[in-house]
Amino acid sequence: MHTKRIAVFPGSFDPITTGHVDLVRRALTIFDEIIIAIGVNSQKQTLFPVEERKRWIQKVFEGDSRIRVDVFEGLTVHYCKKVDAHFLLRGLRNASDFDYEKTISQLNHIVGEDVETFFLISKPEFSHISSTIVREIIKGGGNAKPFLPEGVQF
Amino acid sequence: MHTKRIAVFPGSFDPITTGHVDLVRRALTIFDEIIIAIGVNSQKQTLFPVEERKRWIQKVFEGDSRIRVDVFEGLTVHYCKKVDAHFLLRGLRNASDFDYEKTISQLNHIVGEDVETFFLISKPEFSHISSTIVREIIKGGGNAKPFLPEGVQF
Amino acid sequence: MHTKRIAVFPGSFDPITTGHVDLVRRALTIFDEIIIAIGVNSQKQTLFPVEERKRWIQKVFEGDSRIRVDVFEGLTVHYCKKVDAHFLLRGLRNASDFDYEKTISQLNHIVGEDVETFFLISKPEFSHISSTIVREIIKGGGNAKPFLPEGVQF
Amino acid sequence: MHTKRIAVFPGSFDPITTGHVDLVRRALTIFDEIIIAIGVNSQKQTLFPVEERKRWIQKVFEGDSRIRVDVFEGLTVHYCKKVDAHFLLRGLRNASDFDYEKTISQLNHIVGEDVETFFLISKPEFSHISSTIVREIIKGGGNAKPFLPEGVQF
Amino acid sequence: MHTKRIAVFPGSFDPITTGHVDLVRRALTIFDEIIIAIGVNSQKQTLFPVEERKRWIQKVFEGDSRIRVDVFEGLTVHYCKKVDAHFLLRGLRNASDFDYEKTISQLNHIVGEDVETFFLISKPEFSHISSTIVREIIKGGGNAKPFLPEGVQF
Amino acid sequence: MHTKRIAVFPGSFDPITTGHVDLVRRALTIFDEIIIAIGVNSQKQTLFPVEERKRWIQKVFEGDSRIRVDVFEGLTVHYCKKVDAHFLLRGLRNASDFDYEKTISQLNHIVGEDVETFFLISKPEFSHISSTIVREIIKGGGNAKPFLPEGVQF
Repeated sequence: MHTKRIAVFPGSFDPITTGHVDLVRRALTIFDEIIIAIGVNSQKQTLFPVEERKRWIQKVFEGDSRIRVDVFEGLTVHYCKKVDAHFLLRGLRNASDFDYEKTISQLNHIVGEDVETFFLISKPEFSHISSTIVREIIKGGGNAKPFLPEGVQF
Repeated sequence: MHTKRIAVFPGSFDPITTGHVDLVRRALTIFDEIIIAIGVNSQKQTLFPVEERKRWIQKVFEGDSRIRVDVFEGLTVHYCKKVDAHFLLRGLRNASDFDYEKTISQLNHIVGEDVETFFLISKPEFSHISSTIVREIIKGGGNAKPFLPEGVQF
Repeated sequence: MHTKRIAVFPGSFDPITTGHVDLVRRALTIFDEIIIAIGVNSQKQTLFPVEERKRWIQKVFEGDSRIRVDVFEGLTVHYCKKVDAHFLLRGLRNASDFDYEKTISQLNHIVGEDVETFFLISKPEFSHISSTIVREIIKGGGNAKPFLPEGVQF
Repeated sequence: MHTKRIAVFPGSFDPITTGHVDLVRRALTIFDEIIIAIGVNSQKQTLFPVEERKRWIQKVFEGDSRIRVDVFEGLTVHYCKKVDAHFLLRGLRNASDFDYEKTISQLNHIVGEDVETFFLISKPEFSHISSTIVREIIKGGGNAKPFLPEGVQF
Repeated sequence: MHTKRIAVFPGSFDPITTGHVDLVRRALTIFDEIIIAIGVNSQKQTLFPVEERKRWIQKVFEGDSRIRVDVFEGLTVHYCKKVDAHFLLRGLRNASDFDYEKTISQLNHIVGEDVETFFLISKPEFSHISSTIVREIIKGGGNAKPFLPEGVQF
Repeated sequence: MHTKRIAVFPGSFDPITTGHVDLVRRALTIFDEIIIAIGVNSQKQTLFPVEERKRWIQKVFEGDSRIRVDVFEGLTVHYCKKVDAHFLLRGLRNASDFDYEKTISQLNHIVGEDVETFFLISKPEFSHISSTIVREIIKGGGNAKPFLPEGVQF
């Protein structure tokens, strides 16, 4: 048992959605601290710059000392070690997510032995929301507001 | 945040397998106490009587004060309330498990609002082990030992 | 093109749920008439008797002349022919439903050539609701009201 | 109920396959008019230019006044509004398609409230045919003819 | 490498379908001998008695010396050892089949180390045919002939 | 029945993993010769050059005359014909793999009628290993050794 339960919640958050926010709030029932960690990858194009993505998340969780926002490069489990987090938090939306998450979870056991991944399944009202879909709506000129937390404005 | 993190790990445990044991051990990194709760249902036939199933689990976790073994009837979320547990622990082995677990997790949010379900994905070496399969091996006269923890003997 | 678009919506409706009701209402945008057809099978045990299941559905759609409620035995496509319906209506909740529905849809093409099956995917707020789950809640002594339309009382 | 049942069948149709054609023909049993709408996206590379894709579809359905072929940009539900269509038509080939289509169908309910998506499941003889696969065959120098309707020639 | 490649094709064959027959014929390209092995289980009810199921299979493959028909009880891998077969043959129809077959295949590696399972994926025209579906058609009074090989008559 | 059972095992092998190696060894129980065929595609970027990928595979199977390593362009079934192989060998790791492999297997029946695809399901200890995942680890600066056969060094 670790004295302080710190979880890393990794992702691109391009942008953060109401689905992400709900997941973090539900996970705060069990973790003492959650680090929302924006993974950057120079080869992958994003819709929004990392600074904007970070600022949005900070705004959403403003005033909640249990939430930290950070940016990292490289393997997630390496980042966990660096910040001394023993837990990973991941959301599962549908069966298609599952096989991918299973593979990652199993690899993390080998590459980063001391990190355990806990999963929450999205609530019905959020299970169809993903950053990918939200980006499609934005690019198509649609109204993405119902899927974005209040702090996100562009 | 709850002062003590108590999780209920519900199931038939007919019988408990090495997969279950691994899941409980991994979950002990985050929960202060885990109640392994054998759900009984007078309409469902089991291979082993509930007393035997309970005794096996007790033997496996003997001496670990963080583990309690119990028997319950009715809805899992009702049982959680009764024992003042705010968490459910579930394992996910494959994509076929997923849709069922998603439905249950989403219903628990409605029927028992204050209970959150956390999931662990089985490690590769346990993801093919289920009580159903183990029962098939036992009924077929095969050697089920590789899938059973040491306390289980019949 | 058929002069009147009649669809059969087959199922056990043991009991009818808010998910079924939503599906029928959405399908009324395209069908002129929908026959909610309770399939009975003497070998399969149900929680509620067929008369009660029928009465509930009638109550729910009372006053809507586009909805008929009926009971049938045998193959669904045979029933379609009997009532001169050229369409089947089915709901899809999750990927686990899919392979089963695909098989049935493909067979109906062979066994009953002139019947076409149209599918609607459940809305998020209904995709975790099935009669099976509702029966579990009822049997477990839980409150199933959030999943039942107003006419259903027992 | 809408006076005229107009459905939009959106896609890249790069190129149109025998699977698409079968779907449209089956859907004509219920829709009064189907608009085959080629979605264009300046960022996505296609194998065939949009004019060629459009001409092929027109050739395939030549003489059938119930079929219109069009090109659109942006969100599908916006296009539906523009052409006053209240229905979307989509095909489902396998379980992998399902989760994606579910997400899109659920979002369309929010972004474009008045549009309902109806699904047909591909017949066995077409369920392995997709434009992606056909493009692979063409690029690999194979014979794609068994998967292409007669009008498609290059 | 084994001097003679003998495969066991296990199942209930209640009844044998055109899908099974196609699978066996395709597998004969690689195996020297295939034993179609009807697994019996006193606790499981079948539609047709085992003698009838066996006679039908024998009729279908009459005159082909590479095919043997047999009946067995207990674990499939035990039966393989008994008849000195080092291979199991299984068909995969859809993704729902997959997780089950994966579990069985992985267990067979542990329980019966020397038996390797080879899979064939059903051809499109057979992938919707299963004995379960065929039994439903028969019980519902439908015409199951399109799914049955010529030898099967009742 | 073909006098010599030659199978093609196609892939990118970018890089070859312990999962691939296990699959080939298991398949050698039934095939007389396996050609590990690296498919190249000028439009697809790889992490390692094809010469290096080829050399690694050769090293891994050095001294085993039943294994040949080759490079090909275009459709896999065309390559099979060229080398007079009547079998394709493929591995299945999870349900997500399945629908894709089914499509490919069914198309190969049409495009290359005389080639039969046999599948093996990955053993538990290898089912989470894919070249994609291994590349992610390498790019992220992690230790990929547990997933690579001995001959692979960079």
